[in-house]
Order: sequence, then C-alpha cells, then structure tokens
Amino acid sequence: MTRIDHLGIAVNSIEAARGFYEALGLTVTHEETVEHEQVHTAMIPMFDSRIELLEPTSVDSPVGRFLKKRGEGLHHVALHVDNIADTLRTLRARGIRVISEEVQVGAGGHLYFFVHPSSAGGVLLEICQDPIPGS
Amino acid sequence: MTRIDHLGIAVNSIEAARGFYEALGLTVTHEETVEHEQVHTAMIPMFDSRIELLEPTSVDSPVGRFLKKRGEGLHHVALHVDNIADTLRTLRARGIRVISEEVQVGAGGHLYFFVHPSSAGGVLLEICQDPIPGS
Repeated sequence: MTRIDHLGIAVNSIEAARGFYEALGLTVTHEETVEHEQVHTAMIPMFDSRIELLEPTSVDSPVGRFLKKRGEGLHHVALHVDNIADTLRTLRARGIRVISEEVQVGAGGHLYFFVHPSSAGGVLLEICQDPIPGS
Repeated sequence: MTRIDHLGIAVNSIEAARGFYEALGLTVTHEETVEHEQVHTAMIPMFDSRIELLEPTSVDSPVGRFLKKRGEGLHHVALHVDNIADTLRTLRARGIRVISEEVQVGAGGHLYFFVHPSSAGGVLLEICQDPIPGS
C-alpha cells in the first residue's frame, strides 16, 4: 500500500515554523539532529503521515544549500511502499531516473532511495520502507 | 482529525508526469478541467490522501505563472480539517497570515482557504474540509 510517509520542509528556524502547526492543534513529538546530514529535524505526526521540519546545522549542508538557493519550502516528499526492492527494480525498468544506485539504510534501519526530480514532476521524491524486523 | 488531503504538483504535461506514479502502481482515477483556474487536473489517490497533477491550460494562469517562474514542482499542500471555520479563527487569533478573508466554496462544495507561505515554512498551504451535506 503506497502512502505519503512524510513531507520534508526546509526552514530557517524550527522554533519560528512550528507555531503554525501548533495553531492547527498538531504537536512536535520528537526532535533529532542527524549529524551526517547536518540537519536538525522536528517531527509533527498527522494521522498516518507526518511533517518533518528540517533546519540545517550548517550553511554548507544539503538543506543549508537548498535554503540559500530557493528559500524556505518543501524539500522532499516521501512515499511509503511495502517492497522497496521491487519498487526500485520496477522504476528502473520503466526508465525512471533514480538518484541512488541501491536501496540505502537510514536512521533506525529504515530503507530508502531517492527519485530524481526530473522524473517526478520537479519534486525530490523519497521512496521508503519500514525497517525489516530482525535485520 | 487533521490529515494531508492532497499535494498539488505543477507540471508542464500530465501525460509526461503520470508515468512515474503509474510505475509505482498508482492510478489516475479522474481528470478534470477547472475553467476559472485555467488548469487541467489529474487525481491520483494514495491511501487516504492523493496527488493532484496540475497542468495549466494557459500560460497566464496561476499555475502557468508558477511554472514560468519556478519550473515543475510542488505547488501547494492541502491539509484536511474537521471544522474549517474554527481553524480559520484560531489561525487568525495566533497571528498566522491567511490569504483569503473568509472560507471559500470550491468545486463540489468543498470548503477551503489558503495560508500565506510566509506563515507556513515557505509552503503554499490550503486548509480544506469536505462539503457540508445538504448545504
């Protein structure tokens, strides 16, 4: 079952940006710094999906460079799939341009790869899957 | 219950953009031209949410101008709420900048208003609610 896992929104300041979501009755449930991406994240769950606010810890990081070039806004859309290896094979076979050579393993063991914006209507699109239990 | 209702993605050609979503096993279930917005839309349901591809029917339309200025990409995020009038009042009271003076009535009677990107992390954010039965 494919669904929207999260929207990653690049912001200059999580402190400034969270007020809007809190006014909607939503809550920041978790904050985390991802050192190797040089980004501080705030998770805002919303039904079966979530918003992730992304504040760079360095101007010379992926999100820092995005902000410098484009300003605040949507950084990526993540879609959750049930079988990420099959999905990667299928997209490749159909000529969809993927950024990663293989499925990557991220924080907490979750699996992901990115589709190039040129193949996804200008949106940086992450395909992800939950960690495989016991792996 | 607040949830992501849909993501509106501005594209030059729905015909070219739909292939990626179809490769993911998703389906365009409905296409519609919204004359007063000069946009042709294709709906791609995804669990309890959907992607809307937006192709302008005129270069001098909101989506046409967006494409000219920024290229293909996310145009807006729509969040579904249960009581849109309360939400508008709450956001106003908290100093969130909203674009519409009042709740608008759109296609099929659905209710909506827009929050200014400056108050929502650079994202054009639509707040919407289903049509009120019998209204």
